[in-house]
Amino acid sequence: MSIQERAHASKKASIRLAALDGETKNNALEAIAIKLEARKTEIIAANREDCARVAAESPDTPLLKRLRFEDEKLAEVTEGIRSLMKLPEPVGQTKLATQLDNGLDLYRISCPIGVIGVIFESRPDALVQISSLCLKSGNAVLLKGGSEAANTNRILAQIISEASVEAGLPEGWIQLIETRADVSEMLKLSDDIDLLIPRGSNDFVKYIMDNSSIPVLGHADGVCHIYLHSDADEAKMLPILVDAKTQYVAACNTMETLLVHESVAARLLPEIQAAMEAKNVALVGCDQTRKIISVGEATEKDWRTEYVDYKLSIKVVSSLEDAIEHINTYGSGHTDAILTEDEAAAKTFMTLVDSANVFWNCSTRFSDGFRYGFGAEVGISTSKIHARGPVGLDGLMIYKYKLIGHGQTVGEFASGKLTYTHEALNKDCPL
Amino acid sequence: MSIQERAHASKKASIRLAALDGETKNNALEAIAIKLEARKTEIIAANREDCARVAAESPDTPLLKRLRFEDEKLAEVTEGIRSLMKLPEPVGQTKLATQLDNGLDLYRISCPIGVIGVIFESRPDALVQISSLCLKSGNAVLLKGGSEAANTNRILAQIISEASVEAGLPEGWIQLIETRADVSEMLKLSDDIDLLIPRGSNDFVKYIMDNSSIPVLGHADGVCHIYLHSDADEAKMLPILVDAKTQYVAACNTMETLLVHESVAARLLPEIQAAMEAKNVALVGCDQTRKIISVGEATEKDWRTEYVDYKLSIKVVSSLEDAIEHINTYGSGHTDAILTEDEAAAKTFMTLVDSANVFWNCSTRFSDGFRYGFGAEVGISTSKIHARGPVGLDGLMIYKYKLIGHGQTVGEFASGKLTYTHEALNKDCPL
Repeated sequence: MSIQERAHASKKASIRLAALDGETKNNALEAIAIKLEARKTEIIAANREDCARVAAESPDTPLLKRLRFEDEKLAEVTEGIRSLMKLPEPVGQTKLATQLDNGLDLYRISCPIGVIGVIFESRPDALVQISSLCLKSGNAVLLKGGSEAANTNRILAQIISEASVEAGLPEGWIQLIETRADVSEMLKLSDDIDLLIPRGSNDFVKYIMDNSSIPVLGHADGVCHIYLHSDADEAKMLPILVDAKTQYVAACNTMETLLVHESVAARLLPEIQAAMEAKNVALVGCDQTRKIISVGEATEKDWRTEYVDYKLSIKVVSSLEDAIEHINTYGSGHTDAILTEDEAAAKTFMTLVDSANVFWNCSTRFSDGFRYGFGAEVGISTSKIHARGPVGLDGLMIYKYKLIGHGQTVGEFASGKLTYTHEALNKDCPL
Repeated sequence: MSIQERAHASKKASIRLAALDGETKNNALEAIAIKLEARKTEIIAANREDCARVAAESPDTPLLKRLRFEDEKLAEVTEGIRSLMKLPEPVGQTKLATQLDNGLDLYRISCPIGVIGVIFESRPDALVQISSLCLKSGNAVLLKGGSEAANTNRILAQIISEASVEAGLPEGWIQLIETRADVSEMLKLSDDIDLLIPRGSNDFVKYIMDNSSIPVLGHADGVCHIYLHSDADEAKMLPILVDAKTQYVAACNTMETLLVHESVAARLLPEIQAAMEAKNVALVGCDQTRKIISVGEATEKDWRTEYVDYKLSIKVVSSLEDAIEHINTYGSGHTDAILTEDEAAAKTFMTLVDSANVFWNCSTRFSDGFRYGFGAEVGISTSKIHARGPVGLDGLMIYKYKLIGHGQTVGEFASGKLTYTHEALNKDCPL
């Protein structure tokens, strides 16, 4: 089948999938977990082939770690599937109920988006995670994984498809796409694909955004800040700064720029420098910073850079407003925190900083679907519409309006014979 | 100022606007209504200039009716502003509150999207309506109206800007764009513009969608269906069909295709033909239809066409499933209705038809923000993400996460020293 035909098949399957009840979907999830466990040996063998091929080509690549899929990763993904089963059924919830007239009732009902195109890089666990999220939310999915993981992805997709179709899911709801050429084609299929979720490097996400008219859920950068206000509590400061910068440097919610109020810079920067350098963090700073501590020079480019590394830029600012202005100018709208003991300053910061996640007195590293308690995460969005910040199952849902009448026409209301009541109804949609 | 500078100015204003309380915004709305009334003579004079110019160029154009803005339209828009004031404040609502740990509280708070670019055609009332919706929802707005209404738009935008800034709104929150070249530039400004709302013809909306990477809220077509099931109530049938087709043919929620179950086609089609022809509706039909009534031939193209005229295509289908399949294949995902007395059939239809609005036993013409009780309408969306169907103030809102801690780090949770509680909090965000 061509990619067009496969996208079309998944669109058709998505209609049936959207109509399934929660029990059928949970049974399918359980069947997938069981089959993944039962065929463990095959999965690991396929993965070892992939790893051996990649290792032969470039033995030292960090890719190998992400690519490896053995007992531990398998246990993680099946545990993930089982915790997903425990989440409330997202489809068919009545979000709004309004009586338009006696016997004319309007309901806003949650429903799946339709067909999700997911493009991810080398981690095969992403395939299982994303397809089980799509299943739970009633969405069909087109998956394109990294070519390094071709064998692993093929067997995982095959197991998920077989187990779920045996459990009553419509054939074709999950499709694996294998070639780069197919991805270019996929980006054009706006009639059949409703949302793209690219997971991977910033450049990769940006490429997808620039090359498709299909809506994209993803973030192109994570330039996160912490602002030390003049009254920041020093006891809280170092643990938070060290955590935000070094707990996992490759994450998008890692601090890249530290802003320090000028009234405390001279006192605090030396201990910050010591703590960061003890963790091998390279520092660059603005002119004012460099008058206080001996660090490299930060250029305009630094303020916009997501280092994804043991590196931090530091800027001294003269006010809360300057800090906010810097963040809104150079930040990426991801996650920004203020350290202060002044509630009014925190409120100003959290209101005026235009980011998906705004924090007071805690590490930027908390912005994450699992930590937020969403159970599972599709990704983190820096888009301003649909879903913002860590995106759980909610981000894969939309709604439809159901209107139930008894023969009403608009003409009767236009003529004044009937009038809209617009009363809130306290009940769920009967169908 | 260049369009880039103006978009950037509106972005800056949007930050301040997002922080305003409901009272300030309502006072600004009232000030706008008062100033519009006070400067009525000037507005009407400006509009008459526009109308005279258009009338001189093309005396018979239907545009003139939409362009005209005199006492009645002015009364309508000021009434609209005052009813908008009565709607609940949309900004700052706590949508979710979760305790992540003792003293680490997460809140999802509604907030404006940021900067909305609105491109509308000849109706000057759209300028007032959209800018007051943006104000109420805390969004800055770039407006581009039709060049026919240049004088009217200029004075309306000036009055709205003056009155609102006097009432405490940040300067630059509303910007009028006047040239076509500026629109092309505007479509590129994805850093400063967060959402585009094009209002106008389908071709126009499609053009915008195809030429910008900024998310677009709009619909490209309204190919709406009614399906007459085998047990449709004949007493309800004709009033609904005639209303759906003729109550206002130029609307996007007007029925364009009628699907009839084969078991009732022979009996019902003649009376439908009589009722439609009495209203001057031209009919075309499939082969089976034409064996029963004498009408023109419907081609494949008819099934995809939004006539926006006194014309209806008719197709005989052999089952509920065929009707659903036809709608999902040829429809535009706007509004589709079933007439049946069978609740199970209605449920199947409403679940499997993949449209924003699915109706049972009432006219498709009800899909409209005012009729739905949303108070005001931004437009109707056939997109599958963010907002679907009639879009009220909700469609101009997004949310941000506020996390309030006391020094917590992710490392303490990763090491097992702390564990996430993830308990729902029953309170609003304190800041």
